[in-house]
Amino acid sequence: MAEGRPLYQQHPVEYPDGTPPLGEDQAQALNAHLDHGWQRDGTRRLSREFTFGDFRDAFGFATRVALLAEREFHHPELTVTWGSVVVTLWTHTVRGLSRNDFIVAAKLDRLAEPTGPGPATP
Amino acid sequence: MAEGRPLYQQHPVEYPDGTPPLGEDQAQALNAHLDHGWQRDGTRRLSREFTFGDFRDAFGFATRVALLAEREFHHPELTVTWGSVVVTLWTHTVRGLSRNDFIVAAKLDRLAEPTGPGPATP
Amino acid sequence: MAEGRPLYQQHPVEYPDGTPPLGEDQAQALNAHLDHGWQRDGTRRLSREFTFGDFRDAFGFATRVALLAEREFHHPELTVTWGSVVVTLWTHTVRGLSRNDFIVAAKLDRLAEPTGPGPATP
Amino acid sequence: MAEGRPLYQQHPVEYPDGTPPLGEDQAQALNAHLDHGWQRDGTRRLSREFTFGDFRDAFGFATRVALLAEREFHHPELTVTWGSVVVTLWTHTVRGLSRNDFIVAAKLDRLAEPTGPGPATP
Repeated sequence: MAEGRPLYQQHPVEYPDGTPPLGEDQAQALNAHLDHGWQRDGTRRLSREFTFGDFRDAFGFATRVALLAEREFHHPELTVTWGSVVVTLWTHTVRGLSRNDFIVAAKLDRLAEPTGPGPATP
Repeated sequence: MAEGRPLYQQHPVEYPDGTPPLGEDQAQALNAHLDHGWQRDGTRRLSREFTFGDFRDAFGFATRVALLAEREFHHPELTVTWGSVVVTLWTHTVRGLSRNDFIVAAKLDRLAEPTGPGPATP
Repeated sequence: MAEGRPLYQQHPVEYPDGTPPLGEDQAQALNAHLDHGWQRDGTRRLSREFTFGDFRDAFGFATRVALLAEREFHHPELTVTWGSVVVTLWTHTVRGLSRNDFIVAAKLDRLAEPTGPGPATP
Repeated sequence: MAEGRPLYQQHPVEYPDGTPPLGEDQAQALNAHLDHGWQRDGTRRLSREFTFGDFRDAFGFATRVALLAEREFHHPELTVTWGSVVVTLWTHTVRGLSRNDFIVAAKLDRLAEPTGPGPATP
């Protein structure tokens, strides 16, 4: 495990089908690195709602999440409504939460920081 | 003309085919309401480059521009590369610049202000 | 009501807050114009799942839905996962289904027809 | 070189800065695997215009191209206007065309085949 680097600089790895989900202690420890907005359903699901002023900004954020998900090849469920994007993470092959979900969550926390034309979001 | 409201709160109207483009004086007066980043090619084209730290943020912005364009039903040319979105505006039916182009440009100036989850971009 | 034109060529109108939802008979009659894939929860919600071979094609379709929604200014809830987009429609101001939802549903049925570079989807 | 697999199943690799572009013979040989719509500017640029019936379908396709580009981490220049997406490929580090450009072009040829809800585009 690449413990030395912050979570948001790590990348998902492939877990073979049937790998067990994280234990509660591990999930708690990783959760401590995330924004307080994340809701965790034990070791099953991790989700956060991001709010916006209109549909356009919500969908623009969803597009950035989609591009990040395709880049990391770990895809959340995205629910977009007027002014809101709910991202829900889990790992299909482990039937619950893996380290991958916390890595992507940490990257999304950075993606959600205010941005506009200008320097990169790392 | 709805001169009382700021340009960014106005909406494009339909110009019949063959309507002449704005005169240079009108174009100059409207141009004064825009960000200094806009380049104007006389009364023919209006364009601005918006820069970003990576492809993902550039394309996320392009998506917000596309949604705005579809809402206002006035569509620019959009060129997206790594870290950059160039928006070029003109009005097909007038074969050059109309007031519509300055209205959409003013809306894009607001769209480009730093934003993230939080209050609306008007 | 513009009964003469097919539903997919009509456009949403604004309903003032507090307008009652459609009655069950009206909802049924409008529902008859839609693809069989739509699930209707009485006069409360209308939803359809569109399936795709991967996340990329699912999100590409979601983007087209988003642009249509912004154009018609009637916004569904969109849930995107790997290979699937679920669209759920209702009208906020009527607290249930209005004619607007069936109009947008009919437009989405056409949007979902196979397409590629080539002629327009009306 | 993974010559055994069709081009569209291969993936871009990283070329160090200063790697020379392909020779004309190599470029020609790879070009033979692509759709006739591609225009090649010697060993400098490769571009293809994809046409659509409206802005919405054009931008929906651009989004699928963007997701593919982010997945393969080889990013074209994308120019979207009403009814058209022009994709231009080259490799920054070789200052011209590399095998990567032909791989992504071959993937885009497949992406452009008519599609809708249903089986995956490989």
